[in-house]
Amino acid sequence: MTDLRRGDPTGLHRVLDPAGVLPQAAHRLDTRAELWPDEVRVRVERLNLDAASYRQLERTHTVDGAVDGDAVRQAVLDIVAARGKMQNPVTGSGGMLVGTVEEVGPDSPLGLRVGDRVATLVSLTLTPLVIEDALARWDGRGEQVPCDGYAVLFGRSIAAVLPDDLPAELSLSVMDVCGAPALTARVVAEHAARDGRAPTVTVIGGAGKSGSLSLAAARRAGAGRTIGVVPHQGEAGLLTQAGLADEVVIADARDPIALRDAVAAAGGPADVTVVCVDVPGCEGGAVLATADRGTVVFFSMATSFSAAALGAEGLAADVTMLVGNGYLPGHAAYALDLIREHAGVRGLFERRLEVSA
Amino acid sequence: MTDLRRGDPTGLHRVLDPAGVLPQAAHRLDTRAELWPDEVRVRVERLNLDAASYRQLERTHTVDGAVDGDAVRQAVLDIVAARGKMQNPVTGSGGMLVGTVEEVGPDSPLGLRVGDRVATLVSLTLTPLVIEDALARWDGRGEQVPCDGYAVLFGRSIAAVLPDDLPAELSLSVMDVCGAPALTARVVAEHAARDGRAPTVTVIGGAGKSGSLSLAAARRAGAGRTIGVVPHQGEAGLLTQAGLADEVVIADARDPIALRDAVAAAGGPADVTVVCVDVPGCEGGAVLATADRGTVVFFSMATSFSAAALGAEGLAADVTMLVGNGYLPGHAAYALDLIREHAGVRGLFERRLEVSA
Repeated sequence: MTDLRRGDPTGLHRVLDPAGVLPQAAHRLDTRAELWPDEVRVRVERLNLDAASYRQLERTHTVDGAVDGDAVRQAVLDIVAARGKMQNPVTGSGGMLVGTVEEVGPDSPLGLRVGDRVATLVSLTLTPLVIEDALARWDGRGEQVPCDGYAVLFGRSIAAVLPDDLPAELSLSVMDVCGAPALTARVVAEHAARDGRAPTVTVIGGAGKSGSLSLAAARRAGAGRTIGVVPHQGEAGLLTQAGLADEVVIADARDPIALRDAVAAAGGPADVTVVCVDVPGCEGGAVLATADRGTVVFFSMATSFSAAALGAEGLAADVTMLVGNGYLPGHAAYALDLIREHAGVRGLFERRLEVSA
Repeated sequence: MTDLRRGDPTGLHRVLDPAGVLPQAAHRLDTRAELWPDEVRVRVERLNLDAASYRQLERTHTVDGAVDGDAVRQAVLDIVAARGKMQNPVTGSGGMLVGTVEEVGPDSPLGLRVGDRVATLVSLTLTPLVIEDALARWDGRGEQVPCDGYAVLFGRSIAAVLPDDLPAELSLSVMDVCGAPALTARVVAEHAARDGRAPTVTVIGGAGKSGSLSLAAARRAGAGRTIGVVPHQGEAGLLTQAGLADEVVIADARDPIALRDAVAAAGGPADVTVVCVDVPGCEGGAVLATADRGTVVFFSMATSFSAAALGAEGLAADVTMLVGNGYLPGHAAYALDLIREHAGVRGLFERRLEVSA
């Protein structure tokens, strides 16, 4: 049983409404600055809003084709004030934050010290957050939000100390998607061991952040042929130049037959298919582009559970389908190593940071 | 590329709107009786509506506490007339059907013969269907719908010939959920092989159809301790009497901390957790009740992809999460064998059929 005076490593003691749910499912969290014994408080310097969440806010506050930055900023302030966390009520998603540890509870298992500069690797959707500067330094444009305030980490939260040898922006951008390469590596290694040969791996959205890291991870974990699927010629050029995939294929991932046929022409179907594009409707194509007894890993938050389950059944497809868990032990360090090792991946990330700067 | 004159094993050639999507995602299917070369036409005798779909229709057409059966019937007729398939537009789900093979295309790979009495094991959500008797023999009450009409199976569809040694109602009821025990057995066997010991298995909703079969499958596949979770004393009594689980635990699966603590008290956390209850909000509890490096299999259509993905990440839980694919080769035969072997499971199914009759 949970003793609310001692707290619970899940953060349950911070849930105000409705009672008994986990912080991620809560409408409202307790944001008091005083810590339970296993908590850590972080002085926030920046929020990184989840891309889907920011796009939704931007769309909602666009008038005559122009984004109303003040309205976007106010919307974020309103959400955090009402909920005690940054969780977009429409998309359900949050983001992450960067800051400096300002207090560590005596029972915290996270291994952090006061003064550590950290990024949180758990979602803002479950992180108690107080904004103290009214986001005065943010113009409401872009996912990077300069912010002064504080946030609380629980016993089971995860935070990574930012490395010294990489720019902070780059590290953050990598950590944001670091679950994908770690799980891809595990699945590829399991397939190689089970099947006794190097598996063919397709990454849908191969030129994106999680996609490019997943391609690099697949190769390192023992993939044979790697196939990167991209939506248009521009991304095909970038991915080819990065040297991350044996085959680069242009296809609309929402068109299942086109995807199946394009992957087949590139040497598929794949033993492992990794879905990294954040658009709905990719479930059927991913299943059809995967070999019998293969595995599909869904990292896109736009994935529909029922479309995947009924789709595979409707196609009589014996594929294993994984919900892309954003956490594996050591996932941040693994992804940062990939960036250090592989100039091609690093180039794609740096280009993306320049474009958004 | 797909040649629409030859047809495509996925049934793509029957999709009218929108073009290019798979039949399950289509708004409307072509229901012409004439067959493409790899198709099979079945004379329908009964539809089994998906439970979630029927409940939605029933709720919508309840006035002053009384179900308007005529309105429910008309709603089903309207859906099938408009869409060319039985797919509830609110729940997205369908069901299955029973009938007799009336024509087999020359290139059909399904191995069926004219006159075979079959059940379809692919969802009604992707099966072209024409109702010819206006459902005159159905009062609009209950999921079992007597029906005269025809349906079309594709090259990649699945249909099982009904066995002679079991009542048809019982076979159907088993086939409806036969993906769950087959996948449970595979996952349990993989865990046993990987970990070198008999895994502990929890089935949430252990007294239900898919739950009781999954408990029997887990045991047969090499589970050690089995834990059945049920919502109340009535089901606890039934499950205990059926002798399917080492421990029977009463807990609300939507309360993550209560579920975690109840499973722990029964000998958990589990290496494998199977979610078989069709209510939303069970993701966090299932993750918390599962051991590090364990596996959660979600069979409930009420599962939220993002709640599972973000929930596991938010809990820093290294668990593998599977989308419960309703298809594995041999799944129907496997489930029917479990029913033949295990009087306890059979008893639960027969009781359920009596209650609904």
